[in-house]
Amino acid sequence: MIKGISASSGIAIAKALVLKEEDNEVIKKDVTQYEAENERFKEAVEKGKKQLKSTINSTMEKLGEEKAKIFEAHLFMLDDPEFVGAISSKILAEKVNAEYALKTTSEELASMFEALDNDYMRERAADIRDVSNRITRILKGEENPSIGDIKEECIIIAKDLTPSDTAQIDKKKVLGFATEIGGVTSHSAIIARSIGIPAVLGIGKEINTIKENDLLILDGDNGIVIVNPDDETLNNYKGKMLKDWEFKKNLIQYKEAESITLDNRKVEVAANIGSVTDALNAINNGAEGIGLFRTEFLYMSKDELPSEKEQFNAYKEVLEKLKGKPVIIRTLDIGGDKKLPYLPIEQELNPFLGYRAIRLCLDRKDIFKTQLRALLRASVYGNLKIMFPMISNLQELREAKAVLEECKEELRKEKIDFNDKVEVGIMIEIPSAAIISDVLAKEVDFFSIGTNDLIQYTIAVDRMNEKVSYLYDFFNPAVLRLINMVIDNAHKEGKYVGMCGEMAGKTELIPLLLGMGLDEFSMSVSSVLKARGTIRNLKYEDCRKLVPKAMKLGTSMEIKKFLKDSVK
Amino acid sequence: MIKGISASSGIAIAKALVLKEEDNEVIKKDVTQYEAENERFKEAVEKGKKQLKSTINSTMEKLGEEKAKIFEAHLFMLDDPEFVGAISSKILAEKVNAEYALKTTSEELASMFEALDNDYMRERAADIRDVSNRITRILKGEENPSIGDIKEECIIIAKDLTPSDTAQIDKKKVLGFATEIGGVTSHSAIIARSIGIPAVLGIGKEINTIKENDLLILDGDNGIVIVNPDDETLNNYKGKMLKDWEFKKNLIQYKEAESITLDNRKVEVAANIGSVTDALNAINNGAEGIGLFRTEFLYMSKDELPSEKEQFNAYKEVLEKLKGKPVIIRTLDIGGDKKLPYLPIEQELNPFLGYRAIRLCLDRKDIFKTQLRALLRASVYGNLKIMFPMISNLQELREAKAVLEECKEELRKEKIDFNDKVEVGIMIEIPSAAIISDVLAKEVDFFSIGTNDLIQYTIAVDRMNEKVSYLYDFFNPAVLRLINMVIDNAHKEGKYVGMCGEMAGKTELIPLLLGMGLDEFSMSVSSVLKARGTIRNLKYEDCRKLVPKAMKLGTSMEIKKFLKDSVK
Repeated sequence: MIKGISASSGIAIAKALVLKEEDNEVIKKDVTQYEAENERFKEAVEKGKKQLKSTINSTMEKLGEEKAKIFEAHLFMLDDPEFVGAISSKILAEKVNAEYALKTTSEELASMFEALDNDYMRERAADIRDVSNRITRILKGEENPSIGDIKEECIIIAKDLTPSDTAQIDKKKVLGFATEIGGVTSHSAIIARSIGIPAVLGIGKEINTIKENDLLILDGDNGIVIVNPDDETLNNYKGKMLKDWEFKKNLIQYKEAESITLDNRKVEVAANIGSVTDALNAINNGAEGIGLFRTEFLYMSKDELPSEKEQFNAYKEVLEKLKGKPVIIRTLDIGGDKKLPYLPIEQELNPFLGYRAIRLCLDRKDIFKTQLRALLRASVYGNLKIMFPMISNLQELREAKAVLEECKEELRKEKIDFNDKVEVGIMIEIPSAAIISDVLAKEVDFFSIGTNDLIQYTIAVDRMNEKVSYLYDFFNPAVLRLINMVIDNAHKEGKYVGMCGEMAGKTELIPLLLGMGLDEFSMSVSSVLKARGTIRNLKYEDCRKLVPKAMKLGTSMEIKKFLKDSVK
Repeated sequence: MIKGISASSGIAIAKALVLKEEDNEVIKKDVTQYEAENERFKEAVEKGKKQLKSTINSTMEKLGEEKAKIFEAHLFMLDDPEFVGAISSKILAEKVNAEYALKTTSEELASMFEALDNDYMRERAADIRDVSNRITRILKGEENPSIGDIKEECIIIAKDLTPSDTAQIDKKKVLGFATEIGGVTSHSAIIARSIGIPAVLGIGKEINTIKENDLLILDGDNGIVIVNPDDETLNNYKGKMLKDWEFKKNLIQYKEAESITLDNRKVEVAANIGSVTDALNAINNGAEGIGLFRTEFLYMSKDELPSEKEQFNAYKEVLEKLKGKPVIIRTLDIGGDKKLPYLPIEQELNPFLGYRAIRLCLDRKDIFKTQLRALLRASVYGNLKIMFPMISNLQELREAKAVLEECKEELRKEKIDFNDKVEVGIMIEIPSAAIISDVLAKEVDFFSIGTNDLIQYTIAVDRMNEKVSYLYDFFNPAVLRLINMVIDNAHKEGKYVGMCGEMAGKTELIPLLLGMGLDEFSMSVSSVLKARGTIRNLKYEDCRKLVPKAMKLGTSMEIKKFLKDSVK
């Protein structure tokens, strides 16, 4: 049994497929048959292009256009006669092996890009290296099996998975994966959760004890991998999986059902999405609306600010797909750990406490207005609600609303249609906003509690920082008290409150949140049906009784235990 | 009139003394009289050593031993035959001018240090350059007047002031300074405030319009410099200065007085200090105790962790100087923006939300225990109270107290004397601690509210970040509500509450804090008498009435206005 970090839940049983670690060592060799060597190089390029084309197609299907663009950039490089030509010339002129010519030429190019003081250019350096490594592997005949070509069920074992790797995962074949490095918030963990396969990351060097075709139990719930288990263990896990599977099958009954408690308290279970593709997925999986549409992806997948028209089209499409169900679109939340290559932000000592989200938008009204105009124009195509992120005081809310009014005035003058009654709300994700939520509630239509950031700021902990992430805790009594206060304050003003952080999908916390009066639970699509199932089996009156008791407890542990003991 | 940033308050009127910008350009010249050139170099070194010795003495007197050590390191270099010899050899062997030999030799050395992956070594590179520049200036005869030698009253105008510059400031001669670069938190701003002279920083290129001997009004309160003012302006400012002076003279009456309101509510006005020297200064300026002794300086002025004995001596000395008055010593708060050269912390994306203070101490119990043992041993020499920083939950408090118990047990076994009843408290500087202060109050003897950090975390703003520092605000309603809650919760458990952030010394806020019931106000030494004067002219009953009204207001502006209108 090997321990790692539980990065995506679920259990898988299958044989190990071990991805070899890449050997990027390249030795210079003199070649006499340099014409043939150049042919060998050109063939490798053609093969690489074929691989990329198939990756682009599968990525487009599985992860959407934005992710596919990464590989389009790679393909573009291999189609570039300047790039390929420079390598060919080197092979022919210096009479060296293709690997060496490729490596030195691309390294030179990559270093040039890297030396530029621009994040966007530096990312291009990574692209060059990625392409160069792909062709080197082909040349060396050292290719790992393409993840897209896997024919038998397996669990992937690797040092780490690159975006190229995860983009090709077919969950029918790849039942899960385990890696040497990485953690809960790494790219591969996010992908695993969004595909819905178990993953155990950050195992360390011990992962090297796993051999190809070893039978593995990957236990994503407990963050362990069991290698060549005995029959008893195997049967136990099979039993567990059967139960899980039955549980999931059972969930399908909730797809068309209402999110309602046994004693008729109705709430909304919605989904958090980041793209138009996600929207369809959300509906297909029973979401009653979109509690958070992160618009950053519209900005991050481009080389320049998206135009009003582009944004309008995207918002309109999502609204139409949702057919009148509520869609909360959050205005741009860039900054912090999310950067735009074409909008450089000065290096900050503490980006999480810096220039981001509404702070940036109120400073860059040009960017803000383009988005607000696009949103207003889209508002006639469905049930749109506009949400401002990172509001910390009343002044910011008023300023943001004033900019929205300005946009409305412009559209009126231009005789462009929009819904004048579009609802406006804010994220409650900064402690100061939670604490004055009584005041803020008077000037919004709704709140949505962003627990991911609210927890970070309330406890003063960066959850990405492995040295202190143990403090980041959904059951933290201070955080729960703030949430309770926010809901109370909103209800006193007759406003509704949603939650769009990860906490909203935590089964153990749903009874408490329900008891506090939370109106909308917005979560990753894969949690929607489970959450609805949980809600439909609870009594609101019982949940309400939990609140005053839980609010008196002083430690996470006590709260966790109390909830466990109190709810069935 | 030229505008800059108000970095230290007060007004000064004097002639400008313009420090020339250093010209570090060095040209290579061949010399035939190389023996004479070497003599010239050696004389310059001797002169440099003399300068340094006098700087060390004046720094020791004015700013204490720790700061003087910077210059001792410089002197040490000039006494190093290896360093000086290498330059001499170059002059003699290559027959080049001393400036060139000096510059190239030290640059080579500095680069070597700089290339090392160690902050401490990198700082050595800065030292080498500083010494090299000093000797170059002497060689070139381009020396600025030594700030320590200034004979007439003046206002210094410079691009920036180095630690060498500020260390020599005699406030009887240098009435203030203005610089092209720098801000509220820069080194020179901190020094100006601690000496108590006005400073206007970050003026920009416009500062170059000021000529030597121009008559200047330096208005540190408003961040402006008036060049060659007309008679009316001059008289206005002279009137203002007279009033300020009378106000300050008037404050002396409060030195021996109690901190008591007109209706007999007694509180404590204490000082925040960072060294033994500061302690004496605090008593001489009317502090009734030490509300915060920052022990970081004990650690930062050394090349290794201070031993238990060294710490014991320092704590004992402070306690003895305070003669039974309360001294709150905060355990090590390293991390964040405070680093120890010999205790490298991994690069963090958001150090303010990272591995620091109690988080580090609970992880490095060896460091923590050395300090706690030193504190316990010192506890018999005065009225010591131990305070833990950055507590975010009850678990951390309990763990820290357990380590303290462990130390007590050890000392008991070793038969070493200590005060078993030493009071233990915590900083309230993280929102989660404020929110569960009812729970925490049951397990401490006192709280001290650290407003500097509490504001940063509550509003999610790094006040050092110029793009967002406008959000950092003492009048923020959420922050004030938290403070009010903390005081209430402590009092319900019969515990007392201090405040050791900058807010405690803000005259405009003292009535509100007093009304909330704050028991101890701890501030920079220079604010003590003013704060006491303010308190002695207030009625507690009036102040109490402010609280419920202020707590209902939703914006800083309203609170500011309310307090202004309500208090005389």
